[in-house]
Amino acid sequence: MIVKPVSIAICAPGKRLEREHADAVQALVAGDERFDLQFHPQCFARHGHFAGTDEERLAALVECANEPAIDAVWFAMGGYGANRIATDAIARMGAAAQNKRFLGYSDTGYLLAGLYKAGIGLPAHGPMVGDVRRDYGTAAMRRALDWLADGTEGLEPSLADQPPAAAFNLTTLAMLCGTSLMPDLTGHVVMVEEVSEHLYAVDRLFFHISQHLQGIAGIRLGRISDVPENDRPFGASEEEIAQYWCAKAGISYLGRADIGHDAANKIVPFGLAGRGA
Amino acid sequence: MIVKPVSIAICAPGKRLEREHADAVQALVAGDERFDLQFHPQCFARHGHFAGTDEERLAALVECANEPAIDAVWFAMGGYGANRIATDAIARMGAAAQNKRFLGYSDTGYLLAGLYKAGIGLPAHGPMVGDVRRDYGTAAMRRALDWLADGTEGLEPSLADQPPAAAFNLTTLAMLCGTSLMPDLTGHVVMVEEVSEHLYAVDRLFFHISQHLQGIAGIRLGRISDVPENDRPFGASEEEIAQYWCAKAGISYLGRADIGHDAANKIVPFGLAGRGA
Repeated sequence: MIVKPVSIAICAPGKRLEREHADAVQALVAGDERFDLQFHPQCFARHGHFAGTDEERLAALVECANEPAIDAVWFAMGGYGANRIATDAIARMGAAAQNKRFLGYSDTGYLLAGLYKAGIGLPAHGPMVGDVRRDYGTAAMRRALDWLADGTEGLEPSLADQPPAAAFNLTTLAMLCGTSLMPDLTGHVVMVEEVSEHLYAVDRLFFHISQHLQGIAGIRLGRISDVPENDRPFGASEEEIAQYWCAKAGISYLGRADIGHDAANKIVPFGLAGRGA
Repeated sequence: MIVKPVSIAICAPGKRLEREHADAVQALVAGDERFDLQFHPQCFARHGHFAGTDEERLAALVECANEPAIDAVWFAMGGYGANRIATDAIARMGAAAQNKRFLGYSDTGYLLAGLYKAGIGLPAHGPMVGDVRRDYGTAAMRRALDWLADGTEGLEPSLADQPPAAAFNLTTLAMLCGTSLMPDLTGHVVMVEEVSEHLYAVDRLFFHISQHLQGIAGIRLGRISDVPENDRPFGASEEEIAQYWCAKAGISYLGRADIGHDAANKIVPFGLAGRGA
């Protein structure tokens, strides 16, 4: 039996991808007829902070989304920059984008949010190509590839019997709140994770998002990793922070989520689709 | 002629004040019959990250605001924490708070915003007691004291012939947007400043605030100081960032403002009051 491979287009809406990381992931699927990975040349472009100018990143993303022969769009890296092209990219997406899976997290959350709001494709929060560089990065790649090929092995465990969900980097979600990219998350479980932020900043971000998320089903806290040393202790743990602001805002705190800026980052499809049969 | 001194109460809604900085400011006004500075003991309290627990900081602020013998409330320090007590503090403020001046910036912007929204007193963005530690800190203290005694010498120059104004630290404003503390800034000139943030973070914050500030008279950019070294250049200056997002959002970019996390930080009273006769 000949199985048509899943064609996955890779582009970089924010930071550029190192060629060696692309090569490592390409090597992982070498000889595996289930996957056809197509790295858009824009992944390796440079323009100041970004993987090419806004116009280059926008054009590459729209090309990947609108190509009928492509089944899924996998984001190469986070970094910063997806918010600068998200609105224009989504406006240009056509019929071929409708059934594609889109996978990323961190800064690409602006795109996941906007796609979900626009009802385009199936956006999910999960590993990106550049995560191959992490310890246990190979496992993250296998998890991502499995989901991009309609698998369910890497789903975040609490999705098993839950309301619709969405997941975000905490800063990204805070910056999304109240903007034209923000989807209606009423009734959703919202999972958040953060990296390299002081606990006082996490507290400040929870102050902000908890006032914007009225009507959600609840919040789950992913990993808050690589918290920098501060000159004085904050005085509350990350979970106490989440519980404090959830209680103030009348939002249910539902416990931990298995997501984070690490190779163990599980997959959270937005909404209810993408969880298998 | 005997002139009644201006009684100024000092409390610390976020970070604690070092005793030596209180002493330095007290020494500055020693023998000056125009000023009576009253440092609330809470300024020097410690609790984790904060100048005392939420309850202690809240109680001190409310006490200073509601004491009829006090003419003005001067915030000791920024840091982080004012947003944790602002809503409760404002709810407890009584008649004696109505005519007081409130002066601070940075993290105390949550209080300035909430006071302005509630129509309580005369909040202004300007130097805090802890700024005495900076180079030229004495000039900042004299500027603050002048304004607290109804002077106009230290006003931000563009206020001379402008619409109502407000000024914020950029992160503080971003966290305020869409929350219950956020005042209606329609028709206002909004000035922003930032410190110790990467330019990509400044860009991200402008993305957020520009979508929330529809209907304002325009934005003025204060100083963006102590930008950390990044592993790659951002590719746009702070002013290009402000201009880019203002243009996208249809907001007038009005040029620079003479505010910042430094001793030159000029005073911006919220609204139109506090600018002299």
